[in-house]
Amino acid sequence: MNNIFYAPKSDFNVEQSVEIKDQEALHISKVLRHKVGDHILVADGEGSRFKAEITEINKRTVISKVIEKSVEDIPSKRKVLALGVIKKRDRLEFAIEKTVELDAWEICLFNADHSERSKLNEERLFTQIVSAFKQCGRFWLPKLVVLNSLDEVFNHYHDSEYIMAHEEIEVSNQPKPLVKEQTVLLVGPEGGFSSREVALNQKKGGEFVSLGKNRLRAETAVMAFLSQYLYIK
Amino acid sequence: MNNIFYAPKSDFNVEQSVEIKDQEALHISKVLRHKVGDHILVADGEGSRFKAEITEINKRTVISKVIEKSVEDIPSKRKVLALGVIKKRDRLEFAIEKTVELDAWEICLFNADHSERSKLNEERLFTQIVSAFKQCGRFWLPKLVVLNSLDEVFNHYHDSEYIMAHEEIEVSNQPKPLVKEQTVLLVGPEGGFSSREVALNQKKGGEFVSLGKNRLRAETAVMAFLSQYLYIK
Repeated sequence: MNNIFYAPKSDFNVEQSVEIKDQEALHISKVLRHKVGDHILVADGEGSRFKAEITEINKRTVISKVIEKSVEDIPSKRKVLALGVIKKRDRLEFAIEKTVELDAWEICLFNADHSERSKLNEERLFTQIVSAFKQCGRFWLPKLVVLNSLDEVFNHYHDSEYIMAHEEIEVSNQPKPLVKEQTVLLVGPEGGFSSREVALNQKKGGEFVSLGKNRLRAETAVMAFLSQYLYIK
Repeated sequence: MNNIFYAPKSDFNVEQSVEIKDQEALHISKVLRHKVGDHILVADGEGSRFKAEITEINKRTVISKVIEKSVEDIPSKRKVLALGVIKKRDRLEFAIEKTVELDAWEICLFNADHSERSKLNEERLFTQIVSAFKQCGRFWLPKLVVLNSLDEVFNHYHDSEYIMAHEEIEVSNQPKPLVKEQTVLLVGPEGGFSSREVALNQKKGGEFVSLGKNRLRAETAVMAFLSQYLYIK
């Protein structure tokens, strides 16, 4: 299995060479013990992945010359997964990791009416997004957006389709094909959405879907929801 | 949200009363501090759930009189999720929990050619299955089956349909509607299936499906796979 490394676009020199820094460089130099002349894969998180040859290697900087480039277009249907912040850190982090693997374009965490936690370590979450991004071989790095309420979610993603997963909806209401370029999939925290939030989605023209007859945990709902769109380009 | 408790069928007295024992009883008496006269929900894991009134309560035994019974038929399409044992315990346990929530009829763990772990704490896994079963409100408790190889999986589930999730399959190969009463969904461990196992599935007439273009972790594949059949009765 090939390791993929991440370097933001700003660390590339006009796609000719790339300077990989800090943790990523340490991983290349110390953990994997790469040498000058070795070939590595470097993704910029913005649709391009490069095969590159290491030309200089130090503990915290690895410079590589680009040999080959592969690109992936922006998908025509983009899914934003918006999750009401959940209390348990391990479950929240698991949800984030799976959101990346299951191809969400963007991850939005918001304080839902029933969220019992407000402080988020965004830096730590970003590190996890990068790690999952590299692991699953994606070309586009999902952005993390943190908002204060469901109201803010609707404002932030104003020109989108909204689909809310809601426990009290009949199982026959299954997700339909996506229509707009961008769709916001809304998942509530442990206690589900409040009636205020349900009404808000209705007011905004959002749809409601069921994720089957079982009562799913929030992070399971995230995964089941995204999995409905696994084959959409 | 109503708590559901579990008592195996053998602890029921002809559906008239039930004796809840040990951990479950402790949870009722000490954690939730229920009293004589309180109503609780008790599931037998074999399709029945009872509303019952507590008539006697001790630390480790709770006796309740059945008031009402609701039943759910055996589903006409049953999914067995067969997963090659994965090394990391937290990921394995997460996969088990999600398998219950996402409605697998039975969970089979087997030593795949690329499995790097063989010892399983079956008692601990069973406790987790019960816990997820209660949490998600299912009527049927999934059985846990542990086998030594993929060959044994085919022998054990001999009259079934087999579908193997395989990374090297074209993304256009999406899961189709289930045909037989019982379908075994096969997911490999971290390193995927060996070429021997792929050939074995082919020989047994099994199908192959892709779970999208990203490289999924084993436990993510489990969830994405089961989520394809979320709306099947």
